Amino acid sequence: MLARVSTNPAFKRLPRAVREQQMLDAAVKVFSRRGYHAASMDEIAEDAGISKPMVYAYLGPKEDLFVACLHRECTRMIEAIAGAAAPDLPPDERLWRGLRAFFGFVGAHRDGWSVLYRQTRGEPPFAGQLATMRARMVEVIAGMLDDALRAQGREVRETDLEVIAYALVGASESLADWLADNPTADPEKTATRMMNVAWLGAGQLIEGAVWRPADG
Amino acid sequence: MLARVSTNPAFKRLPRAVREQQMLDAAVKVFSRRGYHAASMDEIAEDAGISKPMVYAYLGPKEDLFVACLHRECTRMIEAIAGAAAPDLPPDERLWRGLRAFFGFVGAHRDGWSVLYRQTRGEPPFAGQLATMRARMVEVIAGMLDDALRAQGREVRETDLEVIAYALVGASESLADWLADNPTADPEKTATRMMNVAWLGAGQLIEGAVWRPADG
Repeated sequence: MLARVSTNPAFKRLPRAVREQQMLDAAVKVFSRRGYHAASMDEIAEDAGISKPMVYAYLGPKEDLFVACLHRECTRMIEAIAGAAAPDLPPDERLWRGLRAFFGFVGAHRDGWSVLYRQTRGEPPFAGQLATMRARMVEVIAGMLDDALRAQGREVRETDLEVIAYALVGASESLADWLADNPTADPEKTATRMMNVAWLGAGQLIEGAVWRPADG
Repeated sequence: MLARVSTNPAFKRLPRAVREQQMLDAAVKVFSRRGYHAASMDEIAEDAGISKPMVYAYLGPKEDLFVACLHRECTRMIEAIAGAAAPDLPPDERLWRGLRAFFGFVGAHRDGWSVLYRQTRGEPPFAGQLATMRARMVEVIAGMLDDALRAQGREVRETDLEVIAYALVGASESLADWLADNPTADPEKTATRMMNVAWLGAGQLIEGAVWRPADG
């Protein structure tokens, strides 16, 4: 009797975690499509196939739901970047793969980027959340730079690494905005451009230097 | 009779342009101190020494006043950068002086940076204004890069220049946020760090290369 499972879909019970992911999937979709202010909890509930009170019960009011979306999407993005930039690769390949993963993510979620990361940058309840995720991203990049330096027996003050990482994150965000605004722009090409600026710098670019991936 | 000027200060008439600048000075000060939402038109009028109806008459409601502040401060900043980066200098000196002017400006107006440029990045009526000013800044940088390339008899597609410029602007904004958050950080040192990332790139930085200004 313990293993008895109802075959009536109305009675199908999903684990809480699965339900939550369904709601977040629907919420990310609706927020991306409508923007934060115009998105309605009704549409999110309908898209998730779950009653509205249930959405509130699981994830709270719209503001909390949005923060949960922001948190999940940022985490996914950082995981995609960190996963692509495997530590056994040379530093330029790590940076390149990280950038390719980042712009690939943004390119695949242009609307989501605009709503989740861009429009909320200045809005008080969300800006703080975004700043926290940004600080995590800065740590990931600073850690990659630190690895590269240590491999050469060199060390740089933590503040300097942090500052370089902030510059790289800011440059990438700015190009991500550009990518989101240019629907025909190619994410991989954008990543290549960013890689050239980030790795070679303006000095070498003006001289005509070009960075190319080992497999390209 | 035509040259008769009242000596009673209550009757002193200032040209409209001067009055407007006084109001904008007061508004920038109050917005920077209180933030957009908490700033009151009463305090702005009092600080400017002008009646509140007069402030409304000249510059409109708070939202319009804020846009006028944003516009004036951005214009001042872009002028400071473009003025510092004189066209007869070598490209690295131009970039360096432009960056020094930028971080000098931000360092001298940390509160203003936070309120005017940062907190409004996502807020609909202001975000558009900011995006316009940002596009002007991108044009300035892209123009500088174009000059440097032409001086070498080289040419690069406009999109590529634009993308590099967006990356540089994004990196600088990100470090400006960092500078605004770190009241003890030195603007000139921040400019030097940004210059090293922007000019040399991560590749040369990891190798231990350092860029130094000709006069330092």
